[in-house]
Amino acid sequence: MMPTKEQITEWFKSLQDNICSALEKEDGKSKFAEDNWEREEGGGGRTRIIQDGDVIEKGGVLFSAVHGEVPDFLSKENAETTGSKDTFYATGVSIVIHPSNPMVPIIHMNVRYFEMSNGVWWFGGGIDLTPHYVVEEDATFFHQSLKNACQKHNANYYSDFKKWADDYFFITHRKETRGVGGIFFDRVTKSENVTKDQLFAFVQEIGNTFAPTYTKLMNKNKTLPYSEKNKQWQLLRRGRYVEFNLVYDRGTKFGLETNGRVESILMSLPKNAGWDYNFIPERSSPEEKTLSFLKKGIEWA
Amino acid sequence: MMPTKEQITEWFKSLQDNICSALEKEDGKSKFAEDNWEREEGGGGRTRIIQDGDVIEKGGVLFSAVHGEVPDFLSKENAETTGSKDTFYATGVSIVIHPSNPMVPIIHMNVRYFEMSNGVWWFGGGIDLTPHYVVEEDATFFHQSLKNACQKHNANYYSDFKKWADDYFFITHRKETRGVGGIFFDRVTKSENVTKDQLFAFVQEIGNTFAPTYTKLMNKNKTLPYSEKNKQWQLLRRGRYVEFNLVYDRGTKFGLETNGRVESILMSLPKNAGWDYNFIPERSSPEEKTLSFLKKGIEWA
Repeated sequence: MMPTKEQITEWFKSLQDNICSALEKEDGKSKFAEDNWEREEGGGGRTRIIQDGDVIEKGGVLFSAVHGEVPDFLSKENAETTGSKDTFYATGVSIVIHPSNPMVPIIHMNVRYFEMSNGVWWFGGGIDLTPHYVVEEDATFFHQSLKNACQKHNANYYSDFKKWADDYFFITHRKETRGVGGIFFDRVTKSENVTKDQLFAFVQEIGNTFAPTYTKLMNKNKTLPYSEKNKQWQLLRRGRYVEFNLVYDRGTKFGLETNGRVESILMSLPKNAGWDYNFIPERSSPEEKTLSFLKKGIEWA
Repeated sequence: MMPTKEQITEWFKSLQDNICSALEKEDGKSKFAEDNWEREEGGGGRTRIIQDGDVIEKGGVLFSAVHGEVPDFLSKENAETTGSKDTFYATGVSIVIHPSNPMVPIIHMNVRYFEMSNGVWWFGGGIDLTPHYVVEEDATFFHQSLKNACQKHNANYYSDFKKWADDYFFITHRKETRGVGGIFFDRVTKSENVTKDQLFAFVQEIGNTFAPTYTKLMNKNKTLPYSEKNKQWQLLRRGRYVEFNLVYDRGTKFGLETNGRVESILMSLPKNAGWDYNFIPERSSPEEKTLSFLKKGIEWA
């Protein structure tokens, strides 16, 4: 039974609800505030922002479902043959959480569905963890959770999508990964080996993996003590996060170039960030250790 | 008498020296530290950074002179006809100063010279002011200084290059200018009306205008009192500066894409910056007034 775009949309909405509830519960103080917005060309979204919590300093859990004429860069072939433009429908959930305690990692997830009136459709998504300080046990736990979720659906998904994440969440000019990676996949559609229903089930599995995985990392680390030096390092790591999102992130670039809702797109940026000229961490420090882990190809799980 | 690339290079070096001296003197506390670097493909630079001064929190005055094979996007026509690649030589001075007191404006200047072995050459440059709080008297003084410098060379330069700056220093996704603008010009070469010598004299005039103009604004504003609220607003304005530099600035993008020295390129970023979700200033506040001035086409001088 093939899921319709309405069913997928409703499921993404419920995912947003469930994740917001779980995050509020683990935070224990702040609640999400909701902004509903409409897109002139069709559709809109529910932007939910949480701020100044006990654990979360600034975070967003965004749902959107938009539609309209297919942008030129996607429709070119078709427009040339038929003279008329296809329409598209896109829906998804995007999350970025910036915790206040530098011992709690930053997390990001996006799950999305896209279809065009010409019958083409795909799922995409990604989830990656950006610890200010890499803790091997936590990185392994995170990757193991994703691996377990992937393995239920396809024996190759974890290794394929883990590699894709290593390549995608990479700050080329710094020659370092954004964090310890995770999984990333885009334009995945049906094939001989997989139905739409199965792909939707996989995307649901990933979506459902987010809350238990991240709240466990929040819970484990939120009461750890930290110093002013740790906070300064957090600012520098957040600076790198800003660099990735503004220079490389496809969703951000696409949103800014297509006149998307700026405040929703840039909710991914932290409350504050910093840049020190030519900062070099002390030898054998936790900061230096963290940098040594920011590379591709580490097998965490 | 046509200036040679060696003469232009030497002059840019002396400009870096003079500007660093003037800024150190007005700051009164910190001194520039110098990093010399070499470029694998040819040439190098003198990066000078000042930090934690009485007035300047973080700033850079950079000289560079690099050479090598012309990048593909510039050499295409020629390579197709001759089969061999032209070489290029590029030299210039780039400056960004982030003051600690939010009542002192951020400033940026770049002056540059480019030539290719096929005989093509041009000058480029720009200088623009980004006040955290727009003060009309200061914006007018700044533009009047630039206008005076331009008028000595060509009756159209100020109006032409002021408009160019309005268009260039624009944060499209925010629909706001980076600050109160200034002048911007690129790929200006000789014509019926102007010689290379005259263009070099104009670029020198702009370069020499920087120190007296900015140190006057430093001096006028550096002792003004400010509140925590002013500091918070400064963080948000710096966030916009980061957005401009990482998303739009051609020099930054070119540098990052061509494997330039990252720490020199990103010296333009402030020590810290911030983002508040959907921040809206109070009505009739100085912050709202400032936003009202961040648009194109204001005739300050």
